[in-house]
Amino acid sequence: MAKALSGKEVVSSINKSIKGEVSFLSDRGIVPKLAIVRVGERGDDISYERGASNRCAKVGVEVKKILLPDEVPQDRLLSEIEDLNKDETVHGILILRPLPRHIDDSLIRNAIRPEKDVDGITDGSMVGVYTGEDIGFPPCTPQACMEILDYYGIDVTGMNAVVIGRSLVVGKPAALMLIKRNATVTVCHTRTVDTPSISKAADLLIVSAGRAGIVGKDYLREGQIVIDVGINVNDEGKLCGDVDYEAADAIVEAVTPVPGGVGTVTTSVLVKHVVLAAKRQSGF
Amino acid sequence: MAKALSGKEVVSSINKSIKGEVSFLSDRGIVPKLAIVRVGERGDDISYERGASNRCAKVGVEVKKILLPDEVPQDRLLSEIEDLNKDETVHGILILRPLPRHIDDSLIRNAIRPEKDVDGITDGSMVGVYTGEDIGFPPCTPQACMEILDYYGIDVTGMNAVVIGRSLVVGKPAALMLIKRNATVTVCHTRTVDTPSISKAADLLIVSAGRAGIVGKDYLREGQIVIDVGINVNDEGKLCGDVDYEAADAIVEAVTPVPGGVGTVTTSVLVKHVVLAAKRQSGF
Repeated sequence: MAKALSGKEVVSSINKSIKGEVSFLSDRGIVPKLAIVRVGERGDDISYERGASNRCAKVGVEVKKILLPDEVPQDRLLSEIEDLNKDETVHGILILRPLPRHIDDSLIRNAIRPEKDVDGITDGSMVGVYTGEDIGFPPCTPQACMEILDYYGIDVTGMNAVVIGRSLVVGKPAALMLIKRNATVTVCHTRTVDTPSISKAADLLIVSAGRAGIVGKDYLREGQIVIDVGINVNDEGKLCGDVDYEAADAIVEAVTPVPGGVGTVTTSVLVKHVVLAAKRQSGF
Repeated sequence: MAKALSGKEVVSSINKSIKGEVSFLSDRGIVPKLAIVRVGERGDDISYERGASNRCAKVGVEVKKILLPDEVPQDRLLSEIEDLNKDETVHGILILRPLPRHIDDSLIRNAIRPEKDVDGITDGSMVGVYTGEDIGFPPCTPQACMEILDYYGIDVTGMNAVVIGRSLVVGKPAALMLIKRNATVTVCHTRTVDTPSISKAADLLIVSAGRAGIVGKDYLREGQIVIDVGINVNDEGKLCGDVDYEAADAIVEAVTPVPGGVGTVTTSVLVKHVVLAAKRQSGF
């Protein structure tokens, strides 16, 4: 049986360190604050907002919600963001996306000051991931993968890592973050010929394919570490990942479960970024 | 014997298309102009400047040179760049680097308007490479590799491509450009375990290792396409690449020579970017 890389354990470790930082800041009169900007009433947004707010509350991070109607004019949204940029009590800004179609996504994303871009969506944050410099913040999901590796003491130096997926929110940043950590990285995607063979050769597999259970036994071998970024609903209405967990459990060395794996860590990374932003903005 | 992927042929094809564009612009009263900013008197800089100027002259692109002393104050350099940004007759700006130590490289790079950043050094251009969007310009060297692929009709879709090197000027952008072109891409570097085996499995190999002749027969197999980005001087004082050309010549399907390969195309890409910048800035 594979070792389950439990997201809960990682979260509890991150929370512990966050609480220490929050208490350090609190002694200096600073309360880290996240502003969540939501346009409209999409169920996904509301549930992510709830998760993030609860996680913040648990560790003493304040949340300010900016709720705007679906038909909000772009200028109004822009001026809300500018107010949040100027507001010294707000350290991080999270904009729930996708935004309605009448709004220019790139304009809104890049209106956020990179120092407050705790979700890693500005061009500045992307340059940071690309160059490996400390500009803005990396996107939370690939950073969650790195936190899992760190918590379990997995040094990827010299490992053959395969990333399945080439999106801007997971695949590309995960690949660049692994390259920075000295892994040899291969990026597979929908146009890859024979992804199973390539995956099978990997020491570390990060899967963000967006298809339930697609990574089965023909992708896997003994000794692998598998991180499953997928979040899907299967035919029985249950949450599941991109990895066939039963198959992985029988073959590989370690695998993240879904639910209870990367997803749960992602929210903690967001909160960690807010606290880090608060520290930086306060000169610590 | 391998087919030699001649840079000269690619250059002559690019020059032909550039001349057409220059004549189109000239009919509308526009002469594309490149500004070259050089600080100090480094031999490498002077020789690159000469090469670029000659190439520009051949196709009817004007060159404006801004020559500044080694000890130029940063503010002065910055104000020169701002003048070039504002000057509507200047379409592209090339800053020869590295800059002297007293100058903040990031500040100077990012002072260039991305539309005029024909050498792909601004954060804006990097975001363009990372996201695959049309922002600024890609760096000239990896773009030269793409031009070679295009000229020889090599579609990389589904190919296993291996990039040796992870620099910001070659390795990372080349990898991202190949991913955009639907290749399955592996990035190897100094911390990779067994680069020869990984290279040997590649259909396409782009080598930017910075070590003369390091890629020998244990990296190569029949049927491969090899693009050698290296420019080194060997023990006999001759220019040579990172690939052992004789070994490659005996084994692979096609290989770029050094000299006469990627390097010569790089300068043409710079000129092509200037003409493209002139077109865009004139609304064509």
